[in-house]
Amino acid sequence: MAGENVVSSKQVICREEITGLPKESDMYIGTSTISLKVPQGLKAVLVKNLYLSCDPYMRGFKDKKKDRLFYSFSADSPVVGYGVAKVVDSGSPEFKEGDLVWGPTKWEEYSLLTNLDTLVKIHHTDVPLSYYNGVLGMPGHSAYVGFYEICAPKKGEYVFISSAYGAIGQIVGQFAKLMGCYVVGSAGSKEKVDILKNKLGFDEAFNYKEEPDLDAALKRYFPEGIDIYFENVGGKMLDAVLLNMRVHGRIAASGMISQYNLERHEGITNLMQIVYKRILMKGFLVFDYNHTYSKFLEHTLPYVREGKIVYMEEVNEGIESGPRALERLFTGQSTGKGIVVVARD
Amino acid sequence: MAGENVVSSKQVICREEITGLPKESDMYIGTSTISLKVPQGLKAVLVKNLYLSCDPYMRGFKDKKKDRLFYSFSADSPVVGYGVAKVVDSGSPEFKEGDLVWGPTKWEEYSLLTNLDTLVKIHHTDVPLSYYNGVLGMPGHSAYVGFYEICAPKKGEYVFISSAYGAIGQIVGQFAKLMGCYVVGSAGSKEKVDILKNKLGFDEAFNYKEEPDLDAALKRYFPEGIDIYFENVGGKMLDAVLLNMRVHGRIAASGMISQYNLERHEGITNLMQIVYKRILMKGFLVFDYNHTYSKFLEHTLPYVREGKIVYMEEVNEGIESGPRALERLFTGQSTGKGIVVVARD
Repeated sequence: MAGENVVSSKQVICREEITGLPKESDMYIGTSTISLKVPQGLKAVLVKNLYLSCDPYMRGFKDKKKDRLFYSFSADSPVVGYGVAKVVDSGSPEFKEGDLVWGPTKWEEYSLLTNLDTLVKIHHTDVPLSYYNGVLGMPGHSAYVGFYEICAPKKGEYVFISSAYGAIGQIVGQFAKLMGCYVVGSAGSKEKVDILKNKLGFDEAFNYKEEPDLDAALKRYFPEGIDIYFENVGGKMLDAVLLNMRVHGRIAASGMISQYNLERHEGITNLMQIVYKRILMKGFLVFDYNHTYSKFLEHTLPYVREGKIVYMEEVNEGIESGPRALERLFTGQSTGKGIVVVARD
Repeated sequence: MAGENVVSSKQVICREEITGLPKESDMYIGTSTISLKVPQGLKAVLVKNLYLSCDPYMRGFKDKKKDRLFYSFSADSPVVGYGVAKVVDSGSPEFKEGDLVWGPTKWEEYSLLTNLDTLVKIHHTDVPLSYYNGVLGMPGHSAYVGFYEICAPKKGEYVFISSAYGAIGQIVGQFAKLMGCYVVGSAGSKEKVDILKNKLGFDEAFNYKEEPDLDAALKRYFPEGIDIYFENVGGKMLDAVLLNMRVHGRIAASGMISQYNLERHEGITNLMQIVYKRILMKGFLVFDYNHTYSKFLEHTLPYVREGKIVYMEEVNEGIESGPRALERLFTGQSTGKGIVVVARD
């Protein structure tokens, strides 16, 4: 009967459509009511959201790109993004009550999700569940695809990662170290640089904000040049990297992480280096590589369990912390991959 | 005894080192003497040069790049470049008198060549020998590598070729048509555009000099976008192409053909398209693909024999025509792949 299993559900709601970098004040906490039962005949799942993921690609855009999976910040609607959730009720034979999943969800306590194709079931729960927003989810899989599938690394090669402290960068660096590469990362603060070197095992790291001449900085860290560049920022950094690439170098650039640079249109003047040095540059989107997710997980889970890959998270407690967590991400203040804990089980 | 088998040998000689685009007046015809016998014990061949090849990558450079195979225009020396030649005497078991070869040689009637690794023996002589400077030599092989190996074309795809009338471009276009692709080329004159469309089978072609807005021109010819771009020019054209690439597009850029654009450093502002559209861009040098030459030849020879691939040459008669032939190439006046006929057998 009506009202049965109806609960209240706190939500992070956008005041209006956000077209630039989201600020805390662009959102507020509202409350709706929701039935915990999937309507009869609807192929959907009703989930309890546990861990929400703060990701750079969530930023708003003035021009709506056709190929975006979703828009995170629509007016008067809950934020949309990735998260880890628990199935409360299922209208699909593929999911049952109690299943843990990760994929696109909404920033609210409970969600009715109809995009079942994009939900991934979690089978391994001996690791922190929030990791399925990071090292074991989309960022980790992106790192895997870009580094192994696209860059085909060899032991001893020279690897550079921009935004190395980001959700993807920190994993690429550790993959590269595990392969016996020489790894340097750039980041935007002394604290991040210290963690890259002392906790994540990078050979070197530098604060790009303190380098007036990026070309000179790269020459200092890579006197022999760069074999592999994991590209996260574009612009001046890419231009400087191109000058320092080695013959047959490879550049991987993730489509998602880079979308927040859409408005940056600095001219790249050294592109012909790609030609002279026979460089491969490849943009990619992890969703084109769904078929490699289980291979990635098989590769990465043991390292995570043994502590050979560590992962920096910034844990924000309670759905109420959501707006602030997003502002911290987009102002570069986060101390790790941004996670909003809605509930722990 | 001394003097035996010594003949005079006309040469195209550079007055001084050429660091920019070679002009006719930068060179003169001289005469040296040469013994037609390979000196005892020297692993070399003495060849009679037949057809010399005018290639864009021959242009001079201010800064000598380490990875260049050779410098074409050194002071007081004969021009160096590719050519087809006949072995007159051999100091190597791999070559014998009468063998026809193609590879790096000098612009003179007879040459002593020691770089035997780079000489390729010609086994099929039922096609014009000069074709081994073009459709069956390095340009043809470059077209093959860039189109098939790098771009992995599929039937029905949309292919754009800049410098489409060039030594490589005209072959890429015909490969693409044979695969069932839609093919458009750009060139620098009405005459070239007409030949591309009426003789080489391109679906469309346009004169880039008459297009004030390259982006608009590309949108006109590719309303659905471009799947494959064979890049020969860089700069503004590349920037416009990036805006018109389709998701999962591929861009191949030959290291050799593009070296003549070294001094062009226009900023590319649309590079992030590579990321958003998950594009592959790959610079390549045909010398990295020597292992595919015989596969290429097997693929291409039948088409040439059957007239399914035609090849536009500009035949310049006599070694004396060499300086002018080079100037014609570098001023875009050539009516086809530039060939200098030194002798026909």
